[in-house]
Amino acid sequence: MIHHERVRPDPHVYPPDEWNVIEKKFNPRIIPHTETIMAVGNGYLGLRGCFEEGGPIGQDGTFINGFYETWPIVYGETAFGFAKTGQTIVNATDTKIVKLFVDDEPFWLPNASLRSYDRRLNMKAGMLERELLWETPSGKLVWMRSRRLVSFPHRHLAAISFEVEVKNAEAPVVISSEIVAIHRKSITPEGGDPRQAKVFHDRILMPLTQISQGQRIVLCHETKSSKMHLACGIDHDFETENSYTVKTKHSEDFGQVLYSMNAVPGIPARLTKYMVYHTTATASPEEMCDRVERTLDRVKGQGFLPLQKAQQEFMDDFWRRSDVRVTGLSQYPNGRSDMEIQQAVRFNLFHVLQASARAETTGVAAKGLTGSAYEGQYFWDAEIYIMPFLIYTAPRVAKNMLTFRYQMLEQAKKRAKELGMKGAMFPWRTINGEEASAYYAAGTAQYHINADIMFAMRKYINATGDEEFLVNYGAEMLVQTARMWNDLGFFSEKKGGKFCINGVTGPDEYNTVVDNNLYTNLMARENLRYAVRTVEWLREKDIRSFEILSRKLRLDPGEIEDWKTSAENMFIPYDEALGINPQDDSFLNKEPWDFENTPQDRYPLLLFFHPLTIYRHRVIKQADVVLAMFLLRKEFSLEQKKRNFQFYDPLTTGDSSLSSCIQSILALEIGEYEKATRYARAALLMDLADVGGNVKDGCHIASMGGAWMILAYGIAGMQDCNGTLDFHPKNIPDADISIRIPLTYRGRLFAVEIEGRTAKYTLMEGDDLTLFHYNEEFTLTKQNPVAVRPVK
Amino acid sequence: MIHHERVRPDPHVYPPDEWNVIEKKFNPRIIPHTETIMAVGNGYLGLRGCFEEGGPIGQDGTFINGFYETWPIVYGETAFGFAKTGQTIVNATDTKIVKLFVDDEPFWLPNASLRSYDRRLNMKAGMLERELLWETPSGKLVWMRSRRLVSFPHRHLAAISFEVEVKNAEAPVVISSEIVAIHRKSITPEGGDPRQAKVFHDRILMPLTQISQGQRIVLCHETKSSKMHLACGIDHDFETENSYTVKTKHSEDFGQVLYSMNAVPGIPARLTKYMVYHTTATASPEEMCDRVERTLDRVKGQGFLPLQKAQQEFMDDFWRRSDVRVTGLSQYPNGRSDMEIQQAVRFNLFHVLQASARAETTGVAAKGLTGSAYEGQYFWDAEIYIMPFLIYTAPRVAKNMLTFRYQMLEQAKKRAKELGMKGAMFPWRTINGEEASAYYAAGTAQYHINADIMFAMRKYINATGDEEFLVNYGAEMLVQTARMWNDLGFFSEKKGGKFCINGVTGPDEYNTVVDNNLYTNLMARENLRYAVRTVEWLREKDIRSFEILSRKLRLDPGEIEDWKTSAENMFIPYDEALGINPQDDSFLNKEPWDFENTPQDRYPLLLFFHPLTIYRHRVIKQADVVLAMFLLRKEFSLEQKKRNFQFYDPLTTGDSSLSSCIQSILALEIGEYEKATRYARAALLMDLADVGGNVKDGCHIASMGGAWMILAYGIAGMQDCNGTLDFHPKNIPDADISIRIPLTYRGRLFAVEIEGRTAKYTLMEGDDLTLFHYNEEFTLTKQNPVAVRPVK
Repeated sequence: MIHHERVRPDPHVYPPDEWNVIEKKFNPRIIPHTETIMAVGNGYLGLRGCFEEGGPIGQDGTFINGFYETWPIVYGETAFGFAKTGQTIVNATDTKIVKLFVDDEPFWLPNASLRSYDRRLNMKAGMLERELLWETPSGKLVWMRSRRLVSFPHRHLAAISFEVEVKNAEAPVVISSEIVAIHRKSITPEGGDPRQAKVFHDRILMPLTQISQGQRIVLCHETKSSKMHLACGIDHDFETENSYTVKTKHSEDFGQVLYSMNAVPGIPARLTKYMVYHTTATASPEEMCDRVERTLDRVKGQGFLPLQKAQQEFMDDFWRRSDVRVTGLSQYPNGRSDMEIQQAVRFNLFHVLQASARAETTGVAAKGLTGSAYEGQYFWDAEIYIMPFLIYTAPRVAKNMLTFRYQMLEQAKKRAKELGMKGAMFPWRTINGEEASAYYAAGTAQYHINADIMFAMRKYINATGDEEFLVNYGAEMLVQTARMWNDLGFFSEKKGGKFCINGVTGPDEYNTVVDNNLYTNLMARENLRYAVRTVEWLREKDIRSFEILSRKLRLDPGEIEDWKTSAENMFIPYDEALGINPQDDSFLNKEPWDFENTPQDRYPLLLFFHPLTIYRHRVIKQADVVLAMFLLRKEFSLEQKKRNFQFYDPLTTGDSSLSSCIQSILALEIGEYEKATRYARAALLMDLADVGGNVKDGCHIASMGGAWMILAYGIAGMQDCNGTLDFHPKNIPDADISIRIPLTYRGRLFAVEIEGRTAKYTLMEGDDLTLFHYNEEFTLTKQNPVAVRPVK
Repeated sequence: MIHHERVRPDPHVYPPDEWNVIEKKFNPRIIPHTETIMAVGNGYLGLRGCFEEGGPIGQDGTFINGFYETWPIVYGETAFGFAKTGQTIVNATDTKIVKLFVDDEPFWLPNASLRSYDRRLNMKAGMLERELLWETPSGKLVWMRSRRLVSFPHRHLAAISFEVEVKNAEAPVVISSEIVAIHRKSITPEGGDPRQAKVFHDRILMPLTQISQGQRIVLCHETKSSKMHLACGIDHDFETENSYTVKTKHSEDFGQVLYSMNAVPGIPARLTKYMVYHTTATASPEEMCDRVERTLDRVKGQGFLPLQKAQQEFMDDFWRRSDVRVTGLSQYPNGRSDMEIQQAVRFNLFHVLQASARAETTGVAAKGLTGSAYEGQYFWDAEIYIMPFLIYTAPRVAKNMLTFRYQMLEQAKKRAKELGMKGAMFPWRTINGEEASAYYAAGTAQYHINADIMFAMRKYINATGDEEFLVNYGAEMLVQTARMWNDLGFFSEKKGGKFCINGVTGPDEYNTVVDNNLYTNLMARENLRYAVRTVEWLREKDIRSFEILSRKLRLDPGEIEDWKTSAENMFIPYDEALGINPQDDSFLNKEPWDFENTPQDRYPLLLFFHPLTIYRHRVIKQADVVLAMFLLRKEFSLEQKKRNFQFYDPLTTGDSSLSSCIQSILALEIGEYEKATRYARAALLMDLADVGGNVKDGCHIASMGGAWMILAYGIAGMQDCNGTLDFHPKNIPDADISIRIPLTYRGRLFAVEIEGRTAKYTLMEGDDLTLFHYNEEFTLTKQNPVAVRPVK
């Protein structure tokens, strides 16, 4: 089911634009929505798009990746092995606030009379900008411009440029730049939606030390239970030819630098606010403050321009490597214009960048750093939905994510043991490496995360040739995950001696704790095979490393044979009568869901029906078999794909944002072009048009990565499952799609462009590069950097 | 699996006795255990067997049936329709305490030097008695005797007779009779075992009013969240020829009546303490105190003897109607003596009496009133395990329990609606009628409770002929439960158009949320058929009542046809290859549990393995198919029963105390006599020998009812599923079992006695009675009250 776009904005208020998401009018009804859309971040630090003046607030948010509070998970009825400790990203000290008072009247949007208003997420510059002309109650015209960035080059730094000028009269103007560690109540009511974050009723940030000097304030706090330290500082440069005074004050949880000036008409004032965040679990508060001060020292006095320029350089490089240009996706009925589609494409890529660029020692959260839904935790979507884009545009970031997984291997081994299994079991959801899923049926039971991580790793290794990673980290993860699979499954007499994996949940969370989930079995087989291949390759290639690994893991040659046997005897559900792969052993026995009598406003079903009601019916939350057909495309004939898609598509609610993009790619592959385009639009506009209805809680980063997959794997027909890069561009009848995708592959940067019946490959950087076009090999060289091939 | 008996007491310390459970020595290690064993109660009020002197305490407990506190159930991750409000029986104001001081030294068992000690649960008298001779550190010999009863005739009353005499010297003796509403910490560590009750960290009983006058103190409290009122009072008669003074004091949560006396050798003193409890959700504190005072007024001044006599009359009547005498069950290796078995039989029946006799407007909790495990809530075991004994010995009590279910029908209808179903869905666990199960997989998913209640009701109606109940209450419950079943299941193409019920949990909680659980499908069919039969019978017999019912329930004739069709097309799992009934659709596909490598101390599995580990293996907590074969014996041939039993028995851990009794009955039926006897012993000794290892948390009332079922349905071969009473006594080879069971049936009291090859039926009270012996009808009359028949 393709959910409808809930927001179809008035083009006068929200004019489409290729590079900006623009708002020309303050709209109080969609504040939480735009806070998400207009969020800025760098993968380490994220600021929701709240107004500088501190309100009105939908859901405030200043998030630092991996900075979390813990809490004991309480169960009405507990059981052995249930996850014990919840982890929730903390809404950190807020530095975004710069309040403006003219004639002692606060600037406050809901009652401000505005002559002009323009707010935009500038995706080319990597900034959030606002410019407006305010007519005060006494008739004074006040021009104001703010620009806000979270720096990509400086991981711990954000900055605001705040300019103000009274146009037509003299006026006392006060600018109050603040730092606040106690948070205001959000206007969004809490509870009800299990996807939202835990609400803490007590304060979480406990004050440690404070520093204040000149226009600088540093506050250091500790989280109450997880005992992590956060030091957060602000400093300022203030430039004006008006006369002014400065006053600084602070307490444990609050700091304020107050600029009071007599503004003369036409004389502007510009405040540059530097905001620095450092977090750690170990260093002392004093050291933390030191670090903040050092960063502040480095930038203080420079003003906004150098930061803006560095940001621009970073963004230029990003877009050069990552920008996908596309036209022609707009032509189906009720479509969006090419410009809207292009805007959406860039919006998606930009937010994936903001979620991941400087994540470094952490993962990428489900909402990036745009909201606290899903507790700011890391799931499988990082590997399956987000990583492909990163692997092919920023492989270093992808590697960081895999390294982060390696770092939690010890915890994964402990968890496997607790679950009565050998090897390692990665947590379904986590920040710190411990399983944090409080509902095992749609959590711990999703064993497939083990295979998902290994799948992403293989893609990374293939695309980069980074065998060193495989030797040093990958092989060990493969051994431990293979052990888990081999132990979880068994050879079932009832299934003709096949290797069966029972009691698991696949990606589709509307069918939980089932036997032989097709996706899980296929991905587990892939995991087992890759482990066998890697260990054998290592033995062949690097006997010393192999021996070290063998000793460390007490690797038994018999084990590897066992993995082979399990993999090659894996049970793959197939129904002869229907000619389809059942999603699991019980799926076809379920009662059909009464779609006809389920009104649109009863979706997502999970908010309106008891799990037992959902589970006993034949209804799907998200692509499951269909996802397997995308990831493991070679395991299915085209005919098989068609039959499966046609069977599952009508059963799929798309209640998860992870669904549309995959449905789109498969629909495209089997030639269901209209569906493909409509699903593509739903995925591309998931957040801009609030397709899921909950963009207020944060961006759907996975769907954003999925949007890129539609473009690369879907439209450009990229195939990478054989360890090569092979393009099978789609010639869509009656369509006039053109697309250009830059890709990083084995150290080279190249672009694939498809326009009508022509595919053009251009080597942009690096050595000779061998690619495939419809299975036919060709090579781009510095001498002959371009290859043109027909689209069939 | 037959779990071992954990307690095999030294016969010198715990001498076997037919009518008493005796303890000749204080044993600090089994305090919580004996508190349960020695608990006294009347179904309304229950006092754990704690020592009068107030300690040492294992788990203190004063429970009033249905007096509970509520609390919001917190879920780590919640979902639509999850139960919202927890309900936990409250440890009420404690009145048991009577402290003794001699020479200002407290009597305290752990450091008391005892010349003699005898504590016994006197099941013939319905009292807990203790008599001892204490040698104080200064060499004074103090004789002390206490007797404690919770009155059966006076529902709200308990009493203690406390006698003391200094034998060999004069001494100042102080007796402190107390009433305490703030509870001491239990020594049992909390947490870990999900079967234990919620621990409240804040106080629950909030003081309202207090009264004190003479030797009387009344305290009235309100529960903090559920806002129920409890008024609790004590009063005293003190008789002695020693000189003494009395002092009374009280605060909000404490009251004390202090008797200070100069004891002369050989001059005894006797304190009678009257303890009264009244609870309500509505009446004012003043009225509550009034009620307590009125009850106290009625008994004050009488002394202990009249209460003891009234209790004895009640007990005599009970044993006349209920006492089962049995010999010969002891002959298998490692067996217990006949006397031990007889003691266990009476112990079980006595505790069922104590759990149910005056329950009246409430249900019967899993632990009766002997502990707070399972929160003091009512489950299906009340209907399936406890009610048969009540139906055939105290039908009025059985009727009260069914009436209590009827009273929660409105809530059950609401719950069905919330779960997206028509009709009514009774709560899996509850005190106040709301579903309180915080783990749906082993809670809400146990839809079979609907059928269980209807099954018990049918048994009640058949045994009593109480058609009035059926017309006034039963028919309505049948319609609403039938509607639920008809809506829950569906006709599955995949299963040849059969009526399938998916996504349910049967009695066996080690296999949850499965499709076509055999037990559930068979019991649902029974429910549907009984509903059809009843509605048709009503239309025939009493058209006015039928029309009233039809209008009230908007009963559509087509509905009844639907129920018929669903029932007659019910899918009954059967595996041709194995010749057995699979427990559910997926059961045979599971990986075998590695019983060989599971040591005895890893049972119950639920405390040592993650649910996912348990669920994906072929392992059973408790009789499921085997229970169906017992309840619905006519649905299976003897051959089928044998095959099923032999298949399931080795897979059954017996981790639930509900299992042994059923396994025993089935083993007996198919001729596995040794197993039958060993299971019977496990069931009979479940609590006395602590087979389950958790008797400290309360008696296993269901297993106690199950013990009676072994005797009546198993050994005496009673069959009642055709609406008649037919005996098929077992002639067990090489055994010499004799048994006598009194039964109440259709208003008559009769006894069946089996001894060797003879069965003797004796009409004791009431009109002519028609019975069956191996399907052959015969009639007992006043003229010919005895029939003797051969045992085949």
